Amino acid sequence: MISQHRLRRRVQFYETDTAGVVHFSWYFRYMEEAEHALWREAGLSIHPPHGDIVWPRVSASFDFQRPLRFEQEFDVVIRIAEITARTIRYTSTLSDGDTIFATGSITAACAQKADGRMKAADIPPDILACFEVARG
Amino acid sequence: MISQHRLRRRVQFYETDTAGVVHFSWYFRYMEEAEHALWREAGLSIHPPHGDIVWPRVSASFDFQRPLRFEQEFDVVIRIAEITARTIRYTSTLSDGDTIFATGSITAACAQKADGRMKAADIPPDILACFEVARG
Amino acid sequence: MISQHRLRRRVQFYETDTAGVVHFSWYFRYMEEAEHALWREAGLSIHPPHGDIVWPRVSASFDFQRPLRFEQEFDVVIRIAEITARTIRYTSTLSDGDTIFATGSITAACAQKADGRMKAADIPPDILACFEVARG
Amino acid sequence: MISQHRLRRRVQFYETDTAGVVHFSWYFRYMEEAEHALWREAGLSIHPPHGDIVWPRVSASFDFQRPLRFEQEFDVVIRIAEITARTIRYTSTLSDGDTIFATGSITAACAQKADGRMKAADIPPDILACFEVARG
Repeated sequence: MISQHRLRRRVQFYETDTAGVVHFSWYFRYMEEAEHALWREAGLSIHPPHGDIVWPRVSASFDFQRPLRFEQEFDVVIRIAEITARTIRYTSTLSDGDTIFATGSITAACAQKADGRMKAADIPPDILACFEVARG
Repeated sequence: MISQHRLRRRVQFYETDTAGVVHFSWYFRYMEEAEHALWREAGLSIHPPHGDIVWPRVSASFDFQRPLRFEQEFDVVIRIAEITARTIRYTSTLSDGDTIFATGSITAACAQKADGRMKAADIPPDILACFEVARG
Repeated sequence: MISQHRLRRRVQFYETDTAGVVHFSWYFRYMEEAEHALWREAGLSIHPPHGDIVWPRVSASFDFQRPLRFEQEFDVVIRIAEITARTIRYTSTLSDGDTIFATGSITAACAQKADGRMKAADIPPDILACFEVARG
Repeated sequence: MISQHRLRRRVQFYETDTAGVVHFSWYFRYMEEAEHALWREAGLSIHPPHGDIVWPRVSASFDFQRPLRFEQEFDVVIRIAEITARTIRYTSTLSDGDTIFATGSITAACAQKADGRMKAADIPPDILACFEVARG
């Protein structure tokens, strides 16, 4: 069972803004990249080609400690903080060695697609069986 | 029948990069915004909620003359340059008064979605009836 | 003195994802667009061409109630919730009529650029004089 | 001397659009990622922290053969096609094994930043010494 994942990442040029640092909207994408890598490590895709289960975000937040700049490398560590019948909450830290850039949290809800709409749904048992809350 | 459209646009902060100018990938998005506005002016959506016709890009190009910066305003003029049985080619100029920032071209092909795949298709007559090549 | 701003916005194609809805990272950009428009309404630019004051984000969060889809129109209302010596906290609601799509919050800190670094700084009095906390 | 570079890449969720494929604007970013990796392989950064040389794009184009989808992996091969006193032209192919997704071209011009403006400039000899046109 998978509970966390570490991703090594480098800042791309198009992720920076005219203030000379990574635009804050990108931190949410970095964290989502790690979430999807965690799913792949569990042998799953969060959005398989013909699936009808989707994972819309219920909430997302980040606290920013230090800016990231072009070509800087960093780790995105994502951990499963909570699993309920219909949601998974992740927390994440962006860091490089002892330097912490930001910490974030995303709650995703399980939903079923039907007629182009999304309806809240229980997490399927085969998905639930792959994940557990990270300890410590 | 619609053959061109003018869109007024302002540079957003997240569109700039650490060189202090709009990242070049955004020009293609500006042009696409104008394309979709042209379709709306024709009473159409290029991607209606339950449609099965999509418009993948066959080619796209831009020549960049002058940089755009944060909060700068400019016009995106898009014109239909060519219509074939299965494709529409647009050209576009980004300018403000006499100052030209860039000129571009996009060719979009009509395709039908089936089983999650896209297949080249003739442009439906009701769409064809809405557009014509811009003169002059 | 300015304390809030309302922006009308339409979902662009490149803001959607393969789940058929606006990618959640865009909500933070929508809110930032409204923030910068609020500054313009106050006669200011949040990032003037030769300024040395920048506004890095300290924290950002969103709660998502309903998905947004391609070409959907909505309002972004941003309000100043708190002003301290060095920070401004904004709250925002994305809605259309009675339908609420999301609510968010961003705290931005005043910083001075020097030697390519950012250093926390008091909000300059001429900027402070333009804004006030929204009532009610 | 460096003349080409190969980058392995995976499609991220936020790079897809509501048509279920990678938005075409991303191909230009994929190619630029490979360009910057080619510079790093040459021991250089295309945008060093305190440098005054920048590389605005003069033109950029892509021909799209096949769509890319979420989590698909592919190679971005970039090659130097031409070097003049003030420009470098790159060509690129996005492929996976025998499957070609797209081919593109970007011409970047050497420019010097001064007073927040960019001015065309000769490529510095120490940069010129690192690169050569790819053969074959």
